[in-house]
Amino acid sequence: MFKKILYPTDFSDVSKKALDYVKQLKEAGTKEVILLHIIDKREVESIARYGEVSMSLEKGLEEKMEESVKQEIGAIEAELRESGFDVKVRIEKGIPFREILRVEEEEEASVVVIGSHGKSCVEEMFLGSVSERVVRKSKRPVLVIRR
Amino acid sequence: MFKKILYPTDFSDVSKKALDYVKQLKEAGTKEVILLHIIDKREVESIARYGEVSMSLEKGLEEKMEESVKQEIGAIEAELRESGFDVKVRIEKGIPFREILRVEEEEEASVVVIGSHGKSCVEEMFLGSVSERVVRKSKRPVLVIRR
Repeated sequence: MFKKILYPTDFSDVSKKALDYVKQLKEAGTKEVILLHIIDKREVESIARYGEVSMSLEKGLEEKMEESVKQEIGAIEAELRESGFDVKVRIEKGIPFREILRVEEEEEASVVVIGSHGKSCVEEMFLGSVSERVVRKSKRPVLVIRR
Repeated sequence: MFKKILYPTDFSDVSKKALDYVKQLKEAGTKEVILLHIIDKREVESIARYGEVSMSLEKGLEEKMEESVKQEIGAIEAELRESGFDVKVRIEKGIPFREILRVEEEEEASVVVIGSHGKSCVEEMFLGSVSERVVRKSKRPVLVIRR
């Protein structure tokens, strides 16, 4: 029931809190954690537009973002491995809630553990949080952790 | 983290599925389950109106509903006790998602385990499911189980 957890993180505080729940679920039978970060395509594009940077600079920006994501996610991966989980890291690009739903199916996750609110507060105010949208559309159980 | 579960049930199939998750969480440290059923005031009233029954008959209808609720909930209570949980049964009257949020705070639940969709499908189509509304407003973690 809790064998394979999909844990999407945007490295926010509430994502970190959700990580504690992932760890606790080990006792309920979790073997593997799919550790997922989504690089929001729209964010990269809007930073690039705001800065009026050229295509080649935008490429550089994207690479820098990816580099910092790899570092942050590497630290979480190590933490999970220390706790005795098998870990698979996935870094995807796209619209966060869509990618979560896609990966959840692809990996046949038993459950998704996710923070209630992410970093993009303005968008979430209008469209509902990523977690709400995941709950609405998910075909699998979702555990939402509050701030 | 999972010490005290609030488990609201409307006795639907997905509620029953959620019960399996409650049981599995014992391994992750659950000691107590608050077993909650909400008698939807509006439902009682609309059945009464539809049948054009008098106030005294409405009272009788309510009593009959309560009786059948007590039986159904008693069976679940026994099942949970057999699995080694402390159980507290609560039967409340009101609007389901509001009562869930109220009881969740009153009982200081560690987590709410709830089925994704309840029995009142038409209302849920327009307003979103009870679980969605609980996820949106809850101050505590919520685990939503799918059909």
